[in-house]
Amino acid sequence: MSNPVSTQDLTIKDILEFGATAWSETEIVYKNERVTFSQFKERVSWLAMGLTELGVRQGDVVAVIDWDTMRYMEAMFAVPMMGATLHTVNVRYPPEVVLYTMKHADDSYVIVRDEFLPLIEKFKDAFSFVKGWIVYSESGNRPNSALPNVRYYDDLLIKTHFDFPELGEESVAMVFYTSGTTGMPKGVWFTHKQIALHTMVLTAVGRLPPLNVNPDDVFMILVPLFHIHSWDYPQTVMLSGNKYVLSGKYDVENILELIRKEKVTYTATVPTVLYMILNHPRIREYAEYLRGWRVVMGGAAIPRGLALKAKEFGITVASGYGMSETHGPVTVAFFSDRVSQMNENARLNYALTGGRPLPMVRIKVVDTEGRELPHDGRSVGEIVVRAPWLTEGYLKDPERTSKLWRNGWLHTGDLGVIDEFGYVTFMDREGDAIKSGGEFISTLILESVISECHKVGEVAVVGVKDEKWGQRPVAFIVKAGTLEEGDIGSCLEDAVKQGKIQRWWIPDKFLFVEALPKTSTNKVDKKELRKLI
Amino acid sequence: MSNPVSTQDLTIKDILEFGATAWSETEIVYKNERVTFSQFKERVSWLAMGLTELGVRQGDVVAVIDWDTMRYMEAMFAVPMMGATLHTVNVRYPPEVVLYTMKHADDSYVIVRDEFLPLIEKFKDAFSFVKGWIVYSESGNRPNSALPNVRYYDDLLIKTHFDFPELGEESVAMVFYTSGTTGMPKGVWFTHKQIALHTMVLTAVGRLPPLNVNPDDVFMILVPLFHIHSWDYPQTVMLSGNKYVLSGKYDVENILELIRKEKVTYTATVPTVLYMILNHPRIREYAEYLRGWRVVMGGAAIPRGLALKAKEFGITVASGYGMSETHGPVTVAFFSDRVSQMNENARLNYALTGGRPLPMVRIKVVDTEGRELPHDGRSVGEIVVRAPWLTEGYLKDPERTSKLWRNGWLHTGDLGVIDEFGYVTFMDREGDAIKSGGEFISTLILESVISECHKVGEVAVVGVKDEKWGQRPVAFIVKAGTLEEGDIGSCLEDAVKQGKIQRWWIPDKFLFVEALPKTSTNKVDKKELRKLI
Repeated sequence: MSNPVSTQDLTIKDILEFGATAWSETEIVYKNERVTFSQFKERVSWLAMGLTELGVRQGDVVAVIDWDTMRYMEAMFAVPMMGATLHTVNVRYPPEVVLYTMKHADDSYVIVRDEFLPLIEKFKDAFSFVKGWIVYSESGNRPNSALPNVRYYDDLLIKTHFDFPELGEESVAMVFYTSGTTGMPKGVWFTHKQIALHTMVLTAVGRLPPLNVNPDDVFMILVPLFHIHSWDYPQTVMLSGNKYVLSGKYDVENILELIRKEKVTYTATVPTVLYMILNHPRIREYAEYLRGWRVVMGGAAIPRGLALKAKEFGITVASGYGMSETHGPVTVAFFSDRVSQMNENARLNYALTGGRPLPMVRIKVVDTEGRELPHDGRSVGEIVVRAPWLTEGYLKDPERTSKLWRNGWLHTGDLGVIDEFGYVTFMDREGDAIKSGGEFISTLILESVISECHKVGEVAVVGVKDEKWGQRPVAFIVKAGTLEEGDIGSCLEDAVKQGKIQRWWIPDKFLFVEALPKTSTNKVDKKELRKLI
Repeated sequence: MSNPVSTQDLTIKDILEFGATAWSETEIVYKNERVTFSQFKERVSWLAMGLTELGVRQGDVVAVIDWDTMRYMEAMFAVPMMGATLHTVNVRYPPEVVLYTMKHADDSYVIVRDEFLPLIEKFKDAFSFVKGWIVYSESGNRPNSALPNVRYYDDLLIKTHFDFPELGEESVAMVFYTSGTTGMPKGVWFTHKQIALHTMVLTAVGRLPPLNVNPDDVFMILVPLFHIHSWDYPQTVMLSGNKYVLSGKYDVENILELIRKEKVTYTATVPTVLYMILNHPRIREYAEYLRGWRVVMGGAAIPRGLALKAKEFGITVASGYGMSETHGPVTVAFFSDRVSQMNENARLNYALTGGRPLPMVRIKVVDTEGRELPHDGRSVGEIVVRAPWLTEGYLKDPERTSKLWRNGWLHTGDLGVIDEFGYVTFMDREGDAIKSGGEFISTLILESVISECHKVGEVAVVGVKDEKWGQRPVAFIVKAGTLEEGDIGSCLEDAVKQGKIQRWWIPDKFLFVEALPKTSTNKVDKKELRKLI
């Protein structure tokens, strides 16, 4: 039953076409710019014309070095739709790491925000592999640059229709880098097909409780465009029809102003960002604009204290689980029919697990021999995943690729449990978990319990070597008011009585710090914390 | 950027897995049987075990001859998930055509409802290609049959877990037959990947206005399982989590009872079925249960008179456009952002067009030379389509396949227009359109206008040869009360004044009939009507 007729490939071109026609008047907003989806499609065409004229060809890699801006959004569509690959450079890496990733990815053209020019110019000679630089400035001034072959972004645009090629769905759309515990960051890439599938599934799941997304919702995604292409939300809104607010370089004051001004109702981010928002000194002034806001968070577990604080403001939170290699969320804490019938407190507990696998995702926890562990909510193992949109591997790194994909499953290096209803709880990164007296202590659960104690701001727990027990927990705490070690001690004794933790989980030491060190994607940097002990 | 790591294929197995775990307590209902999605997954396993024991292997074709029942639903998942192909036999075809399709599809095993046994037994000797018969009876009695190798469905089930194989996404899941204007029906088939993609897109679009599907909605699909697998709704509910009501052999009284009893809120069907429902003599008794019901209709244009009648009952209707070859709907009349802002009357007009292309669908109208016509709402051409889930061709018929797929586009043989907002209006089947004095008359628009006239029940317009004009329209009308030709004449004069039709569109003849002949899929049979003139 087969004939040599090709059916249509899944490409980003069709996703943009749907958005630009079905939601032609829906806006993308960045600072003073308001561009409708149909105008956006035109601008994508203009950029593609310009890049083609500059020399960009199918198979080339084009890098972007910028915050979350309108120009970045344009490149996110134009470059892959031309058949080139977009390298979304992590601007929070140290300069030499940025250089390493750009060289490793074979970037031949680079779109760079003027603010990052000094960084680039410092390494000018090392960038000889770059064929052309496109500089973008919000000042309106054409920046002077010592770089060779510099073009100004706005001069590059050619205001005419670009006829995007028909690409195969296996064409590589995006590449970016992710940090491991050792060595230089590793490149992961995603194809048009993978982005299209992930986008369709996110659209279908977004409508489920407690997120309940509908076309009237206004999205502001606070996962940077350089990090897993903001979990594919730029593509997702083209299907779901939501106004999309870009916030540039993340700044809490500006974020709050945008929530108020643009009536933002839906955000995806990491818990640290929500923590910073809710702890802003003038947060009470924005309270009325936060009611009804839905925030889905991944990258780390949501501490219960943060969830309760969000609830006070009338904010609905839900967790997701994923990583760069899994293309962002593979589980989201939507409510299954059973969970929907539970009481409010139980539903909140489920919202704070990593969530349930999305459609077409297979997930299991396995022991060190790769045997599947039971869905009992207790058996801790490594989380392994299969899905049609996971990265096929690490760029030019067959060794780590085969380690990632051993036995046909993507090995996350994360420890977790799965309960009887299929909800996955992320317990720890393999290296972060504490093994004390032969038993696991989940630093994430412990942090969540400490976060509920009065006057605790942020908290992070790491393990230290112990002669007797192997390892023992130490807690780093940022105070949110007057707080002493004894207060936390008695708070945790209560938690033991309530059965939330075991008594032997109580940290041996509490260290009060001004702030917790963060990684380039705003997660707590436990490597740095361990150095402080 | 490629490594030899396989990413996961799109198969029905993962769709069922999602439904059985995310919506484990959601029910499929047929008569007195209420089976939760998780129980359903078990039953699918039992059937697969039984079929395997019987001898069914990957690549075999298994036929089902039944109305919309629980057993049919089980086969819809079990057979494709085993790697075999399900042939959904059109039971409304004449016996010799049923035989033709079963022989043509190489059916090796057949699941048959006892009611159809006499039909089969009559052609017993011609069915020598069938290796095994599985008879299903609701009476609880094991039927006596003259057929060789007969097994009773309930005896076949083996109550243990079946380990479904990992299939390639190009594995053929379903095959069924569609009637053309000439010759025997043609077989069209769909792969796991195509069903998975169509299912994901339908799930994502279902939530948009005016359909606004959410997990609380109760589905009763009145497109038979044998016809385009009920537009993939059995698979779609596994993602969207909706209770699924099966209505057996369609009977208006039973349908109304099910709407009341099961609190049905969402239906997909053809206009004729909604017409029969709303014209049931006891319809007023059910009025309170119809309020809020959403009905999406394809297969034919929705006459405006029917839409207005539906509105009186508080029913929301929306049109879709598609055909067997396109895997059911490729357009649905969801509201784009522009249409959402229009007034109620304009929104109703848009709900009655064929709708907008779904995500990943490309659609255009072309002239006889294949040139694309403008989106001006006036230029009539043949509707041609591309999408990732269209049939690759007609089974064992390369000639008609290449005609269907000429120039890389699926040629529907339907005439239509596209307006500036991308909404497609289906005007006529190519053979049904009337060309009078060199100009097109759309029988569908004309029927819609006549349907609005007082006391008109059903209406169908066909063209007759005319010496002077080439063709002239004749209308067949089923009265819904006392009605004379003059009444319709003056009603159509009003329509001319209101600009709804041209004066020369008014039919030359009105023929009153008791009922309109219908095809096996409940569309008006215009071939039969033409014979009456």
